[in-house]
Amino acid sequence: MQVSLSEIKFDANGLIPAIVQDVDTNEVLMLAYMNQGSLQLTLEKGETYFWSRSRSELWHKGITSGNVQRVVEIRLDCDADTLLIRVHPAGPACHTGHQTCFYRTITKST
Amino acid sequence: MQVSLSEIKFDANGLIPAIVQDVDTNEVLMLAYMNQGSLQLTLEKGETYFWSRSRSELWHKGITSGNVQRVVEIRLDCDADTLLIRVHPAGPACHTGHQTCFYRTITKST
Repeated sequence: MQVSLSEIKFDANGLIPAIVQDVDTNEVLMLAYMNQGSLQLTLEKGETYFWSRSRSELWHKGITSGNVQRVVEIRLDCDADTLLIRVHPAGPACHTGHQTCFYRTITKST
Repeated sequence: MQVSLSEIKFDANGLIPAIVQDVDTNEVLMLAYMNQGSLQLTLEKGETYFWSRSRSELWHKGITSGNVQRVVEIRLDCDADTLLIRVHPAGPACHTGHQTCFYRTITKST
């Protein structure tokens, strides 16, 4: 089922959360935020672009590290307020060097 | 690597986005939000509880549909501001009846 870009609901800050998943392993790599401009660039360039909330600037993922993410598929959820970006990552997603940003586990006792 | 609950960063509204993933298939099922109370309940009960932003109430996922999500593992990302909840789902995650809420695809041309 395909969906039009106009259906996407950006939040009050003009952002939408984007989950990034490795299309080969199905590992969840990271979550970042896109605005309309970064989503357009992602669609045009075929690599992930985000809006950095901390730096308030456009962020081409991997442009300095080389670990760009080649986009295979973009999915939208039922509420149209979350994106799932399925990618081929050129290297680790996390700035710590881990393949995924989700490398820590929470336990009840800690 | 384990992490303490006190390290988790809730946003200005006291919420943190929680990606829910099927632990068997690695399919990404949905994204919802937790506050401290719903995270505590999730840890205690072993099923997912969220904070419904639209209804402003605690939400035990699947309590009406029967499609509860049994929690296997909770991970935290490097920034400590996103959760990844790995679950055994008792049924479809989406209220539309789809297994995942991400059943729609965005294409450049649409």
